[in-house]
Amino acid sequence: LASDGSKLWGGRFVGDNDPIMEKFNASIAYDQRMWDADIRGSKAYVKALEKAKLVTTDEMTQILQGLDQIFEEWSKNVFVIKPGDEDIHTANERRLKELIGTPAGKLHTGRSRNDQVVTDMRLWLRDAISTLTDNALQLMSTMVERAAAEIDVLFPGYTHMQRAQPIRWSHWILSHAVALSRDVDRLQEIKKRVSVLPLGSIFLCSLIFFYVCMCVSLAEFLFWASLCLTHLSKMAEDLMLYSTKEFSFITLSDAYSTGSSLMPQKKNADSLELIRSKAGRVFGRCAGFMMTLKGLPSTYNKDLQEDKEAMFDCYDTVHAVLQVATGVMSTLEIKQSAMTAALSPDMLATDLAYYLVRKGMPFREAHGISGKAVFAAESKNIALNQLTVADLSAVSPLFESDVSSVWDYRSSVEQYSAPGGTAQRSVAAQVEHLRTWQKKHAQ
Amino acid sequence: LASDGSKLWGGRFVGDNDPIMEKFNASIAYDQRMWDADIRGSKAYVKALEKAKLVTTDEMTQILQGLDQIFEEWSKNVFVIKPGDEDIHTANERRLKELIGTPAGKLHTGRSRNDQVVTDMRLWLRDAISTLTDNALQLMSTMVERAAAEIDVLFPGYTHMQRAQPIRWSHWILSHAVALSRDVDRLQEIKKRVSVLPLGSIFLCSLIFFYVCMCVSLAEFLFWASLCLTHLSKMAEDLMLYSTKEFSFITLSDAYSTGSSLMPQKKNADSLELIRSKAGRVFGRCAGFMMTLKGLPSTYNKDLQEDKEAMFDCYDTVHAVLQVATGVMSTLEIKQSAMTAALSPDMLATDLAYYLVRKGMPFREAHGISGKAVFAAESKNIALNQLTVADLSAVSPLFESDVSSVWDYRSSVEQYSAPGGTAQRSVAAQVEHLRTWQKKHAQ
Amino acid sequence: LASDGSKLWGGRFVGDNDPIMEKFNASIAYDQRMWDADIRGSKAYVKALEKAKLVTTDEMTQILQGLDQIFEEWSKNVFVIKPGDEDIHTANERRLKELIGTPAGKLHTGRSRNDQVVTDMRLWLRDAISTLTDNALQLMSTMVERAAAEIDVLFPGYTHMQRAQPIRWSHWILSHAVALSRDVDRLQEIKKRVSVLPLGSIFLCSLIFFYVCMCVSLAEFLFWASLCLTHLSKMAEDLMLYSTKEFSFITLSDAYSTGSSLMPQKKNADSLELIRSKAGRVFGRCAGFMMTLKGLPSTYNKDLQEDKEAMFDCYDTVHAVLQVATGVMSTLEIKQSAMTAALSPDMLATDLAYYLVRKGMPFREAHGISGKAVFAAESKNIALNQLTVADLSAVSPLFESDVSSVWDYRSSVEQYSAPGGTAQRSVAAQVEHLRTWQKKHAQ
Amino acid sequence: LASDGSKLWGGRFVGDNDPIMEKFNASIAYDQRMWDADIRGSKAYVKALEKAKLVTTDEMTQILQGLDQIFEEWSKNVFVIKPGDEDIHTANERRLKELIGTPAGKLHTGRSRNDQVVTDMRLWLRDAISTLTDNALQLMSTMVERAAAEIDVLFPGYTHMQRAQPIRWSHWILSHAVALSRDVDRLQEIKKRVSVLPLGSIFLCSLIFFYVCMCVSLAEFLFWASLCLTHLSKMAEDLMLYSTKEFSFITLSDAYSTGSSLMPQKKNADSLELIRSKAGRVFGRCAGFMMTLKGLPSTYNKDLQEDKEAMFDCYDTVHAVLQVATGVMSTLEIKQSAMTAALSPDMLATDLAYYLVRKGMPFREAHGISGKAVFAAESKNIALNQLTVADLSAVSPLFESDVSSVWDYRSSVEQYSAPGGTAQRSVAAQVEHLRTWQKKHAQ
Repeated sequence: LASDGSKLWGGRFVGDNDPIMEKFNASIAYDQRMWDADIRGSKAYVKALEKAKLVTTDEMTQILQGLDQIFEEWSKNVFVIKPGDEDIHTANERRLKELIGTPAGKLHTGRSRNDQVVTDMRLWLRDAISTLTDNALQLMSTMVERAAAEIDVLFPGYTHMQRAQPIRWSHWILSHAVALSRDVDRLQEIKKRVSVLPLGSIFLCSLIFFYVCMCVSLAEFLFWASLCLTHLSKMAEDLMLYSTKEFSFITLSDAYSTGSSLMPQKKNADSLELIRSKAGRVFGRCAGFMMTLKGLPSTYNKDLQEDKEAMFDCYDTVHAVLQVATGVMSTLEIKQSAMTAALSPDMLATDLAYYLVRKGMPFREAHGISGKAVFAAESKNIALNQLTVADLSAVSPLFESDVSSVWDYRSSVEQYSAPGGTAQRSVAAQVEHLRTWQKKHAQ
Repeated sequence: LASDGSKLWGGRFVGDNDPIMEKFNASIAYDQRMWDADIRGSKAYVKALEKAKLVTTDEMTQILQGLDQIFEEWSKNVFVIKPGDEDIHTANERRLKELIGTPAGKLHTGRSRNDQVVTDMRLWLRDAISTLTDNALQLMSTMVERAAAEIDVLFPGYTHMQRAQPIRWSHWILSHAVALSRDVDRLQEIKKRVSVLPLGSIFLCSLIFFYVCMCVSLAEFLFWASLCLTHLSKMAEDLMLYSTKEFSFITLSDAYSTGSSLMPQKKNADSLELIRSKAGRVFGRCAGFMMTLKGLPSTYNKDLQEDKEAMFDCYDTVHAVLQVATGVMSTLEIKQSAMTAALSPDMLATDLAYYLVRKGMPFREAHGISGKAVFAAESKNIALNQLTVADLSAVSPLFESDVSSVWDYRSSVEQYSAPGGTAQRSVAAQVEHLRTWQKKHAQ
Repeated sequence: LASDGSKLWGGRFVGDNDPIMEKFNASIAYDQRMWDADIRGSKAYVKALEKAKLVTTDEMTQILQGLDQIFEEWSKNVFVIKPGDEDIHTANERRLKELIGTPAGKLHTGRSRNDQVVTDMRLWLRDAISTLTDNALQLMSTMVERAAAEIDVLFPGYTHMQRAQPIRWSHWILSHAVALSRDVDRLQEIKKRVSVLPLGSIFLCSLIFFYVCMCVSLAEFLFWASLCLTHLSKMAEDLMLYSTKEFSFITLSDAYSTGSSLMPQKKNADSLELIRSKAGRVFGRCAGFMMTLKGLPSTYNKDLQEDKEAMFDCYDTVHAVLQVATGVMSTLEIKQSAMTAALSPDMLATDLAYYLVRKGMPFREAHGISGKAVFAAESKNIALNQLTVADLSAVSPLFESDVSSVWDYRSSVEQYSAPGGTAQRSVAAQVEHLRTWQKKHAQ
Repeated sequence: LASDGSKLWGGRFVGDNDPIMEKFNASIAYDQRMWDADIRGSKAYVKALEKAKLVTTDEMTQILQGLDQIFEEWSKNVFVIKPGDEDIHTANERRLKELIGTPAGKLHTGRSRNDQVVTDMRLWLRDAISTLTDNALQLMSTMVERAAAEIDVLFPGYTHMQRAQPIRWSHWILSHAVALSRDVDRLQEIKKRVSVLPLGSIFLCSLIFFYVCMCVSLAEFLFWASLCLTHLSKMAEDLMLYSTKEFSFITLSDAYSTGSSLMPQKKNADSLELIRSKAGRVFGRCAGFMMTLKGLPSTYNKDLQEDKEAMFDCYDTVHAVLQVATGVMSTLEIKQSAMTAALSPDMLATDLAYYLVRKGMPFREAHGISGKAVFAAESKNIALNQLTVADLSAVSPLFESDVSSVWDYRSSVEQYSAPGGTAQRSVAAQVEHLRTWQKKHAQ
């Protein structure tokens, strides 16, 4: 016998009941968040049962009234969880039986725990996606309006963390707003899949395949969260660079900074660091859940219980990050003088090459000539625009006095007037495009 | 001086040139796969340059002819990669210059290496997605037709790896076909995003933001590959169980099995194990790339060079797995007698509860009564359907002689005739639904 | 001004204070678990300050008494967390000031928040590792004693989920016990690194590099947890197979199984599924934290705040899993008859080959001959051991009547008597080896 | 029949042979790297067989000579892989048979393919670990000697990417050298485990459990690679910051930089970006392999075939990164003037607080006073050290004329003379400590 056996080799008490196993098994600590979805799902279900003549109209009425009362209790924060309520479904079911007696048992005709779990998750996640969409649109709107207001500010565009070409500060902002708009698009696709009942059935099919579909949509959501926060981690990284003493392009509002407990002079961009860090957290949830899914036999296995904590944590994290990012973007101050000071003539070396291209030289050759001019200026230890026409024509005879027109940052950016460019009207067009896009996506 | 310095503390030769660094930097070993996309992209680009009057019609013609010749060389496998060809773009550019001289230099007006990389990847990935869509549709079609042909076969549906309820074998097949159809849907959404040029520009904007958008779409693709193979890992796990000696529901064709070098009697389902394992491989690529992206400053950084190997490896893996899975599903044999033998009366305990529900008992109560009947049969060491009416009415007076109708597996499955159910006509309807779906999605 | 600016483009109230940011920033909700470590650390620190003459003996005494009172309050669960207590260190510091006034401020001389965090984590994690070591040793001991008690039971060893060769059930158990012993070894190595103060300093160096070393050790711990649970996921997978109806080798105790809310006859091995699933959860934490670390500038960044929740969650999970696994292994029942019935003569085909090897045939050839015998038996639809000597000598003239000695499972396993083998004395030696090992590692 | 069945629903040719399956199954393309280990393993094995009297001395001699000839062929790059050589073991075995005929078959007595795989991997990985240890020691040595040579250079220490306190440049270097030394320690622990044969057996035990132990050690190695490259990603991130135009603390040698194909003035720190990116690549391999391992039945499953590509790729990557990092660290130039210019009086605010602590004020209070002084200086728009004694005593009466001694960066760093501190003698002691450590670890 096992019980005899356990005396022989068992190291700890094991009987009918292992309290650790029970705690392991229980999900009420976190799934009570879905109380609202659980009640909504049960109300819909009992109406379906009545239509299918599996409960009488009278029974349906009693069940609906009981469910309304439970709703009331949760809303007023007076619902009492009792020992044995291992999940939100058991808790609500137990309470319903206390309130209305026998008819309560009919609510569960043809419905397994898994049906309930997946219905609740579907309803909850759909709402969560709506909220995150609002959060993302709010952040986008903040960014777009800021871009509109500060459209005249130029600063260095970077590649490889090295100054590349002058661009509009608004251009930088909008690039991240566009990325966000694509995140919103992706999220709507997931919402579409979360909302549909696959093949329209809630009976055996659901028992067997439904939950798994939900888990896959959840995995999509977890990855979406990772991708969205990876974007924001990149935006945060830029802003952190810009807020170093060395760059000094921006100052964060005090509400989004903290001091040091050791160093009185420090003002740290904690908000940005927290934003950056959350991409890892959320992707970890995604990685963990994917690993849990891998190689599982199809249909339901208890392993899938990992789903809800991952879902809640990713939602909470993205929800907070989007709001903090909105706060940061609303309140940071730019330091125009530092931005302007960081523009240097060597950033116009590409323009110098284009000057030659306009005079008929192939680009590859012009690139080489411009590089030689850069080298000449470095050798003389002067700025590129301080080379005389004589200096330049030593490098290529195509250089003439009109080369002076190149040394103007505003003219430089105005060259890029195609859609997506950094010219004033291109950026203004992007602002309008995004404003329109937002109106279309407001829920 | 660095060179002096290096003598002091440098442990190895470091000069103008570090061969390891060069190898590290070079991508020609793997990106030559995109030779076709690179040439197509350049042909489109030179036509745009001509329209913008940045090259003459004559120059365009020369460039196009040169590119056609390079295409020819690659097609015939006679293109010679030379030292210094660090990537496919440099290689083709170098060759173009050899072939047509000076005008070759004009092809690169206003186009950076990143523009080329991203254009090539876009073209390549779009084609790759088309191929994978075909592969997935082929697998689906194999599964759907097999399901249609074997619709009359019943076997146990499992949850928690325990026998749950009788279902049709075709129902099992179709559940995986439906999951695949959702994978195809997701892939089309990604293709849509891969195909669009964000905001329509190929100038400065592309330099700065374009590549990053591509990388995000690539990350989506890598995750898609992970999700798709995670599905297939679950299908493979089921099939591996079914092909154990203990289950013996199926036999794999020899083409998809291997023997043991030690044990002469072994026949191993290697194909299924390989399918299962690839979910990890592909997700690893996704995880690696996400980690590489995390916290990068926006715009281009060399870190993004990790993109292409991940893309090729995931494509190759999914491409192979889908084809092997098609082969496995085409050729496995089912063993109907073992499938039937695995159905046991206790799997009808839910039906026994529904019998009571039909007689007016609430489901929760009926579930309890049915459980007592299961216990009674176990106590007597007989099958559930061997309990007499007297035995059963001792448990509940509602049991009458018509209870015998419950003990029929075919009747049991026919109860689930709602869409998505396991009744003959439900499964047949799913077959039709998927056939129609496939026709709509054939490319 | 930011505040003016925020009116222009700010979408939500942002002032000196963003409640979401504060919540984001605060860690008291989870780091209060380290209250004990925090007080112990402060007590050690004030003693060091006194030695360094940075506080007087009297001040030290006051501080120590204050800390003891705080310890008392936490122990009795009466410590009151107040708004503004953003982490456990602030909470204890605030309380100390309430209790003893001015001298409290001296406790923080030369100590930053990071110093405290890392000291607390070090103390906490060291204790946590001790507890997990005990848990692992307890599980090992349960397994080793079970292996000793059931040493005479044979069953099929599997590779590729196919029956391979007969082995002792104890051999299977011990293989997992050995894996656990290696996990314990790894954990001790991490403990060693966690316990050491790098280079022995707690001043500036700690501020700057110390925390990062701690985070790396934490990453090691998170990976250790992943590796340990991956092992247990494999053990759980085996046991799940063994507990299917089809294998029927074991039955789990009711304490580690649950029923189905829909199907009265079901008994599910939920405990094993939970064990299997946690490998994903824990690895997700590891992956998330690694991604957070990647590419961070060295020294402290707020991103590292992700450390503690990962640490607590992994500890709690492994702590629970090891105990549940102990419970499962203590109480499961084996079904010897099913185990014996699963042994079949074809599993002795390797032995048949060795018979020929003993008669002088090279192994590769003998393997081929044995394979032919397997095929001959299959063709005749009889078991391998039912082939007559005549049948066998048709395959190879080396077969003689003494071949009958091959068909004995007990003799077969006794052949493998080298260390690590499955012969009775080999397995008994492993039991002894592990008992000794455990004694050496008992803490 | 399957073949008939395949005609019904099979979409592609499937017969006895699926070329994709064969390619999927074959590993010769990558595992031929282990040719040397494979031959060494076989030589050891045949000697063991001779001792066990399973081959004659003469047979052993023939086999050893054959193996030597195969070694020769691989060394001279003339070994010809033939169709059917699915892995390195088959290839060498096939060749041996060609060379010496029948006795070749005896080499495989009691040895399965898995035995060979694991032996080869063990030998290969042990050598690989030795090489990586050398690479890491070389990098450390470069760093330590550079630290010794440039010990007098001060620059800002950062936390949160904000200037914190003045530290020695050598201190920064050594912090990363210390991290590397811990990586080397970890690697030796793994080598220890890789080198040991678990329980000393190569027979059945190995067949069944040995490979799995190897895979776990491999997982450890993959994680080690991830941790090591995560360190280097952080070092690279710092260096990238330092090499921005805005920081300008260092200049990379041209050998470790590249230009831009579009912007003639650019010089990008590609080497650092590549180093940073590889942490993701390698961790992806680790994540993928862990996911592959999760939930596998114990003993051998074909899924484990994923092991070798992961092992080779991680080795190659770390091998290259360590060498490139050595090159970078050997050749970068520091710009002392920029480093010095980046030190600013506010970085001495902590020292200002300590001034007050030395006059008896509790640290928390002194921290507040110092903060007020920082604010006073900011309000006056002057540097902190330009506040007069009068200004300061308005903040606290404890400030006197000796406060001027605070404003000295060299004195500031000399305060931290405890082990691990940034004082000259502390840093010099660390240099000595690490030199000694290296000597002890040189292989």
